Amino acid sequence: MAQRIRVVKIGGNVVDDADALSQFLNDFQRVAGPKILVHGGGKEATRLTSKLGLTPKMIDGRRITDEEALKIVTMVYAGLINKRIVAALQAEGVDAIGLSGADANVVTASKRKVTNIDYGYVGDIDPMDVNESAISMLLKAGLTPVICAIMHDGNGQLLNCNADSVASAVAIAASRIAPTDLIYCFEKPGVLSDPEDDNSVIRLITPEIFQQLSDDKIISGGMLPKIDAAINALKSGISEVYIKNSKNLLEAQGTTISLV
Amino acid sequence: MAQRIRVVKIGGNVVDDADALSQFLNDFQRVAGPKILVHGGGKEATRLTSKLGLTPKMIDGRRITDEEALKIVTMVYAGLINKRIVAALQAEGVDAIGLSGADANVVTASKRKVTNIDYGYVGDIDPMDVNESAISMLLKAGLTPVICAIMHDGNGQLLNCNADSVASAVAIAASRIAPTDLIYCFEKPGVLSDPEDDNSVIRLITPEIFQQLSDDKIISGGMLPKIDAAINALKSGISEVYIKNSKNLLEAQGTTISLV
Repeated sequence: MAQRIRVVKIGGNVVDDADALSQFLNDFQRVAGPKILVHGGGKEATRLTSKLGLTPKMIDGRRITDEEALKIVTMVYAGLINKRIVAALQAEGVDAIGLSGADANVVTASKRKVTNIDYGYVGDIDPMDVNESAISMLLKAGLTPVICAIMHDGNGQLLNCNADSVASAVAIAASRIAPTDLIYCFEKPGVLSDPEDDNSVIRLITPEIFQQLSDDKIISGGMLPKIDAAINALKSGISEVYIKNSKNLLEAQGTTISLV
Repeated sequence: MAQRIRVVKIGGNVVDDADALSQFLNDFQRVAGPKILVHGGGKEATRLTSKLGLTPKMIDGRRITDEEALKIVTMVYAGLINKRIVAALQAEGVDAIGLSGADANVVTASKRKVTNIDYGYVGDIDPMDVNESAISMLLKAGLTPVICAIMHDGNGQLLNCNADSVASAVAIAASRIAPTDLIYCFEKPGVLSDPEDDNSVIRLITPEIFQQLSDDKIISGGMLPKIDAAINALKSGISEVYIKNSKNLLEAQGTTISLV
């Protein structure tokens, strides 16, 4: 397969907004060539948790995935959200196939080791544990994998994973098949130098620029590990990483992260 | 593909019983050749409905699938149960892939027409609406489809279907690829001439025998449409239909339904 593969990740805010999701899926349908969609969870799991009268278990501010929580995210991410997206893409003419990591053994994860905190049924992913031959087979058959962040450990245990990490690991594995771009779509127009100003998009981030932005504390908080992960993904073989608004999937807008 | 295809359907009682399910999946792993598993729902959806403080909507004793009910069955059947079975089969060494009808557009269904009763988001399946080329492709890739009874209409709407009908339609479609057997597994040892006596298994049912059993009221109730559907499936190209206990998947026990 010589055609460039595009791995697109949509965050929970897009999943939660029916209009934004519908517009995004229509744009996604127009992306030519082999493509993979990875989706986050959104607030539906939190809503279901509270409707069931349960409280999310937290230790030191970290969310714990106990058995009940795993059931809920499996139902919501692998069931409700995944199948809604797949059915909507089929209606758009995209031959989508929804996958957890267990399906076709596409991704195995390792249960996070218990240190100070026992995170419960949370998994971490090594890009070497992505089954690129299964992904290649599905893409060659003309299918578009739609992957949720529920993985398995290969021994029958489902595990809740971080959707950004899933997207990155899948894209790194896909880059062993063909040149691969990774596109993170969320509700902001890109990486902002001023979080309050949507016009302050940083157009290009290289490792050097990242160092500078980080030293100058222009980028901070949750964006730091995201960009760090993007740079590592580039070093592992991905061609380009983009961070952009889900509305601009087809537009040359947002932030490009590149090694040079 | 010349190898005989086996379509196995497990009912809700097997899904609900962790030990029975685990033994069944271990047996299923030992079924040689291309195979497809179709699973019912079990009581988890009912439990979730009541935990959420909802009451199943009934009209004239028939269950109605309104929007909330569709959400619940999509979460439970396509999410929780499907992914648990897939992960367990992967642990058994079976390269399973979980599917709703929307995934790879495997089965489209038609929303049941409103007559006296509006059943809501309930779908009916025509065997011609099963995508046998997708099924063939997955089987040829060495995958074992695990299909839940949530289908789609091709226009973005998910629909709740009867798992027996899904199994029968999938088996009829598979018989267009290769000779196909359809095996219904449930908690009884087969079709019984005395519902109270597990030793009263009727070993063979042909259309003539069925007519006689039905005239003599030896078979009645829910078993009538099941056997009627099985005979129609045989007339549509399936080689053999078996009805047996999920514990006897590998044993020559239970009821065989055959045209001659």
